[in-house]
Amino acid sequence: MKIPPVKGTRDFYPEEMAVRNWIIDGWKKVSIRNGFEEYDGPIFEYLQMYTIKSGDEIVEQLFSFKDRGDRDLAIRPEITPTLARMVNQRINALAKPIKWFSVPRVCRAERPQRGRLREFFQWNIDIIGEDSVLADAEVIFTTVDYLREAGLTPKDIKVKISSRKLLAAFLREIGISEEKFNSLYTLLDKKAKLPAEVFSATLNERVGPEHAIQINAFMSSQTATSVENILHTDISPELDLAIDELEDCAVRLGQMGIGDYCIFDPSIVRGLAYYTGIVFEVHDITGDLRAICGGGRYDNLLRDFGGPAISATGMGMGDCVLEILLREKGLLDKKIPGKALDYFVSPVADTLLNEAVKITAQLRTRGFRSAFSYKPAGLSKQLKLASEQNAKFCIIIGDEFKSGNIVLKDMATGQQKTAPVKDFLENPAKF
Amino acid sequence: MKIPPVKGTRDFYPEEMAVRNWIIDGWKKVSIRNGFEEYDGPIFEYLQMYTIKSGDEIVEQLFSFKDRGDRDLAIRPEITPTLARMVNQRINALAKPIKWFSVPRVCRAERPQRGRLREFFQWNIDIIGEDSVLADAEVIFTTVDYLREAGLTPKDIKVKISSRKLLAAFLREIGISEEKFNSLYTLLDKKAKLPAEVFSATLNERVGPEHAIQINAFMSSQTATSVENILHTDISPELDLAIDELEDCAVRLGQMGIGDYCIFDPSIVRGLAYYTGIVFEVHDITGDLRAICGGGRYDNLLRDFGGPAISATGMGMGDCVLEILLREKGLLDKKIPGKALDYFVSPVADTLLNEAVKITAQLRTRGFRSAFSYKPAGLSKQLKLASEQNAKFCIIIGDEFKSGNIVLKDMATGQQKTAPVKDFLENPAKF
Repeated sequence: MKIPPVKGTRDFYPEEMAVRNWIIDGWKKVSIRNGFEEYDGPIFEYLQMYTIKSGDEIVEQLFSFKDRGDRDLAIRPEITPTLARMVNQRINALAKPIKWFSVPRVCRAERPQRGRLREFFQWNIDIIGEDSVLADAEVIFTTVDYLREAGLTPKDIKVKISSRKLLAAFLREIGISEEKFNSLYTLLDKKAKLPAEVFSATLNERVGPEHAIQINAFMSSQTATSVENILHTDISPELDLAIDELEDCAVRLGQMGIGDYCIFDPSIVRGLAYYTGIVFEVHDITGDLRAICGGGRYDNLLRDFGGPAISATGMGMGDCVLEILLREKGLLDKKIPGKALDYFVSPVADTLLNEAVKITAQLRTRGFRSAFSYKPAGLSKQLKLASEQNAKFCIIIGDEFKSGNIVLKDMATGQQKTAPVKDFLENPAKF
Repeated sequence: MKIPPVKGTRDFYPEEMAVRNWIIDGWKKVSIRNGFEEYDGPIFEYLQMYTIKSGDEIVEQLFSFKDRGDRDLAIRPEITPTLARMVNQRINALAKPIKWFSVPRVCRAERPQRGRLREFFQWNIDIIGEDSVLADAEVIFTTVDYLREAGLTPKDIKVKISSRKLLAAFLREIGISEEKFNSLYTLLDKKAKLPAEVFSATLNERVGPEHAIQINAFMSSQTATSVENILHTDISPELDLAIDELEDCAVRLGQMGIGDYCIFDPSIVRGLAYYTGIVFEVHDITGDLRAICGGGRYDNLLRDFGGPAISATGMGMGDCVLEILLREKGLLDKKIPGKALDYFVSPVADTLLNEAVKITAQLRTRGFRSAFSYKPAGLSKQLKLASEQNAKFCIIIGDEFKSGNIVLKDMATGQQKTAPVKDFLENPAKF
């Protein structure tokens, strides 16, 4: 009976697992040095957690099911609702600002395509309880701190920054009614992915031709001043504040030394409904790939989940697009360590297998990565096995063992030395 | 809107996450030093993967659902079927024996109770393609290598070892018909968990009183010889072989230096249907807890999944019972590192916040775990924050900064030194 894997999922053989571990270890290391602490939640939650606030795109992509008590559950498509629930549960006990990160496995029931699978790992960093733009800048810095360390330069990627507050203020000023905002965010977020004529026609239909022109002009603005110029009225205090925040953020990013990675780009909207302030995405310069990551401020989410009105800002980065980009840029292959052993223990005759078993067990207990050959064999076969397993040393248990000695062969240099097994085991590192 | 977590799942706040990471890092380290390589599969597979060969207990516990194409899927309740699928897919390309480990998150739709949740992490090690009992012994050694390193002694735990082959040969010899075997394994596996009278009544009903007496005698045998004594016939070659294997295994475990952890115990059956040879469980000495882990040989599983007839043996250990035991023995609390920073950067006035932002960004980029205070404040407040975050050093940016200096305070000793910020940033470790 042969059963295939489900389309859009991945099997991680040791080679692929090494890449996944390398990426995730990098995320963890950079999170910790930026002062974030790790958390995680369950892989499934009540379905309602995702239908409340995430927006239509997420709801369509849920893997939902029932438990034996007929309750509706869903595999998590993202971890932000879990984060909101967890923080709300202990809101008074947690010191603010809360700086947490996580690397959840998340699942989305969508059509698999390049860089988009039904199951992936997503690095999340969040700062909760800090209103200052400094927190948004810190989230962006931590993101770039990782990408830069992975080897990506301002010639490879750009952080495109805009503001949901700016967009909302703009839509209000040109006279779009509030109840259209959420579905407009979803549409505008898809601009780059939709054929131009489909986008134009849909936008026209939603807001009429005059507003469509203004929205298009907004999305292609290159500076805050050009946003202001689209409007023929006085600028509202809300819009003014949004521009101030963006400028403040740019100053902070400059102080942090990553100004050359960042640009203002009001075409960045983000699909999720819950964003309220600065939003950003990181894209590869060529624009061939989907966004590498995205994030922003979501000041109402904790309140929406039954908690206090407390501000929050964060970022999520999946492993799929990132891996494609790193591979294309040649930044993966040389860095991933494969299997390696400190010692491969080789009995050259059946009668010596017992000794190989004993010696290997002692080496492992002392912390050395060790293996032995299940089948005693001649020396050349043994050395081949040691080499295949990338062993630093081959311990040969042969004729010398009659007088209590082993032969230690350095697999890199080919040098051999004979040593009493007792002395060797007392301090293997000395030999 | 307040939504609770699903019963039987866990929220990992940073404190709980640190414990989970400590356990999992230990599993990984011991796996690698014993020569295993890491793999993983998808969190869900086609439902059929689990209904074929795992046995009734697993099937009842599945979280199953449909995708948009109406295909039946299930969240993995164990990773062994995925392992069989993955190995079969590349059977010719993989060097034998295959020694792999994994730490999958797995889910089971059961009633949550002490040490048994609906979602947990399970360390798996498997050796595929090696018939020798040496492979079974190596799996047991690796298991004990971890438990011993975690601090558990032969006074805390015992590895109870038996053989499905021995049990099957015994059942055959006393004349139980083959089609009853699988449901008997499930029943016998539950002996310790069921009330004695319920177990006796059920067993009587299944096999009749005479066979029930023989089976009870088998399960309480303390040596292979006493198993033989229950039978009034000659020993079958199959039973003879099973006894030889158990004796061989005991010799190997002695050579490996863990004989004092291991005992023969034919009451160990294992619930899953696919075991074929040596089986084992690790229990705490008091018997208060469920099994800490279990495993054994499953020589037919790869063939059952459409692959070649290739032998396999492995072990699975969940994190829940293990954590309870380690906590009870006092082996957890002191070992788990909490949040710590290398540097906490403290501006003592609003005008100095910019400098704190710059210095922190540079320290992070150089790999130092660093944070700054969002809100400039007086020195005593800053030192309190640095201490709360468990910082090694507090970098005070105060009046001295006018002449380009920072003050570096060692939080452990209280010692302070003044240093030019430029020199410090060139080589922070020197100060």
